[in-house]
Amino acid sequence: VLALVTRLDAEAEQDWLLRLQAALPGEEMRSLRELSGAQLADVEIAIVADPDPADLSRIPDLKWIHSLWAGVERLVSELDRDVPVVRLVDPELGRVMAESVLAWVYYLFRHMPEYARLQRERSWRKLTYRRPDEVTVGLLGLGALGAAAASRLRDAGFNVAGWSRGPKNMPGVATFSGETGLDTVLARSDYLVCLLPLTRETAGLLDASRLSRMPEGGSLINFARGPIVVTRDLVALLDKGRLAHAVLDVFDTEPLPSDAPLWTHPSVTVLPHISAPTNMDSAARIAGENIREYRRSGVLPPSVDLGRGY
Amino acid sequence: VLALVTRLDAEAEQDWLLRLQAALPGEEMRSLRELSGAQLADVEIAIVADPDPADLSRIPDLKWIHSLWAGVERLVSELDRDVPVVRLVDPELGRVMAESVLAWVYYLFRHMPEYARLQRERSWRKLTYRRPDEVTVGLLGLGALGAAAASRLRDAGFNVAGWSRGPKNMPGVATFSGETGLDTVLARSDYLVCLLPLTRETAGLLDASRLSRMPEGGSLINFARGPIVVTRDLVALLDKGRLAHAVLDVFDTEPLPSDAPLWTHPSVTVLPHISAPTNMDSAARIAGENIREYRRSGVLPPSVDLGRGY
Repeated sequence: VLALVTRLDAEAEQDWLLRLQAALPGEEMRSLRELSGAQLADVEIAIVADPDPADLSRIPDLKWIHSLWAGVERLVSELDRDVPVVRLVDPELGRVMAESVLAWVYYLFRHMPEYARLQRERSWRKLTYRRPDEVTVGLLGLGALGAAAASRLRDAGFNVAGWSRGPKNMPGVATFSGETGLDTVLARSDYLVCLLPLTRETAGLLDASRLSRMPEGGSLINFARGPIVVTRDLVALLDKGRLAHAVLDVFDTEPLPSDAPLWTHPSVTVLPHISAPTNMDSAARIAGENIREYRRSGVLPPSVDLGRGY
Repeated sequence: VLALVTRLDAEAEQDWLLRLQAALPGEEMRSLRELSGAQLADVEIAIVADPDPADLSRIPDLKWIHSLWAGVERLVSELDRDVPVVRLVDPELGRVMAESVLAWVYYLFRHMPEYARLQRERSWRKLTYRRPDEVTVGLLGLGALGAAAASRLRDAGFNVAGWSRGPKNMPGVATFSGETGLDTVLARSDYLVCLLPLTRETAGLLDASRLSRMPEGGSLINFARGPIVVTRDLVALLDKGRLAHAVLDVFDTEPLPSDAPLWTHPSVTVLPHISAPTNMDSAARIAGENIREYRRSGVLPPSVDLGRGY
């Protein structure tokens, strides 16, 4: 028996169940909520979308967990047992994240926030156009999502500087790693895009000292996780005009509370965590393939390193 | 003698003169303002940037005119003599226009105006994501700029439907021509991008009847010339919610007068004619190459069809 474990509402749960059943025709696919205590003993694999960790503890013989999402840091940190967690690696997720990165880099690069302000002031003023090869986009994180974003930015003509934990090589992208490498990327980034996983090492990484290494008038895009950026430090740099703008899709608390000052900051664009929406069809299909392969060969897909956190 | 004829201010005129002199080392390059009556008789070629047609009439033996801009419809309509007009065909202009088209298609496609509104309302709400292959961008005009834009949109995964005066073929782009073809493109265009030249045929082309052929909730981007769109008709369709949004970079009168209602229309993004800023360096270089080729071979670059208007 496969159990779907989620805190999503009943409608979203049904959407997932239908797609997972279609992707796993031979399996008995059930919501955890519908399973009796006796049935729980038959569950080997939990498929999860924002699960309550206490629910997972109710499954006595759980062999592994397949997440339907790419980000699993909360699940991993809350899990009180040593069971492999497989996160979703969906090429469609890479494509849509790369598209988001390019779209919101263009948003900043083509001065859309400033032109919106000029429109409110009824002011007809052309801002200086720089070509993409005259600016640099810094990318923090060169995993599946970061690599897809780096290629799209490079193909759009931008200089791209990428940073990752360990050394990587990408044609047409200047790559860096380690603490010194981070400083180099920060110093070059007219536009800094954060795609890092949230781990003990990355929490609070982008603080006043690191953000201050960026060029005067630089801008930040955070499409990763809120706590990687120290919001107070970012806002101070925006207030001083040291940084020009921030596009924030992720926050320390989500949904962003309605009294949060970020909503009304003139140099902040608030997005409701939409940079890489899950495609339910392809997510269910990929989870289905992974589980069928496990049934056939007994081999688990690569799972998250619980120590490293991703 | 080559004469630069322009209504631009002295500083802009100097910028052009320096670049043109650098691009045409053997030539005597002068501003018309500096030429005496006797010297005017020696001028064969006028290089123009927003010229006063009366100034051009002062040159008795003018053989041809090289515009530093791509759009020459006003010059052609005001010119009272039959002298060839060569307009600027700059690959860099195609690149930057294609970039503008992609950037503002993304602006609409990724719901940036709606997310800005939701931010003002402090409302955390995810809008439905559609993939680029689930929508169609219609392109009116498949000249050098339109063709460059069509390729970029196609490569970004959008369905692209292109319309031009005469039949054209472009790999991966559905192309149409003629009045029936125009109706087909309009009916398919979730996003309609206008890149047509302004001529007698295109003035007022996008009126209530044609815009009403677009799908419910479609959006318009006009990066061509203001008078191609009937503003009153467009605003009526936006007011009704029949069309969702318009990005307007060009207007009947430019600069857009500060009392124009378009400035404050919630479904209109006003841009100050910045979709394809002239790159002075490459424009001067290309004009220089054309004039040197003419001196060498006596052959004029392709000139504008004064009857057709472009």
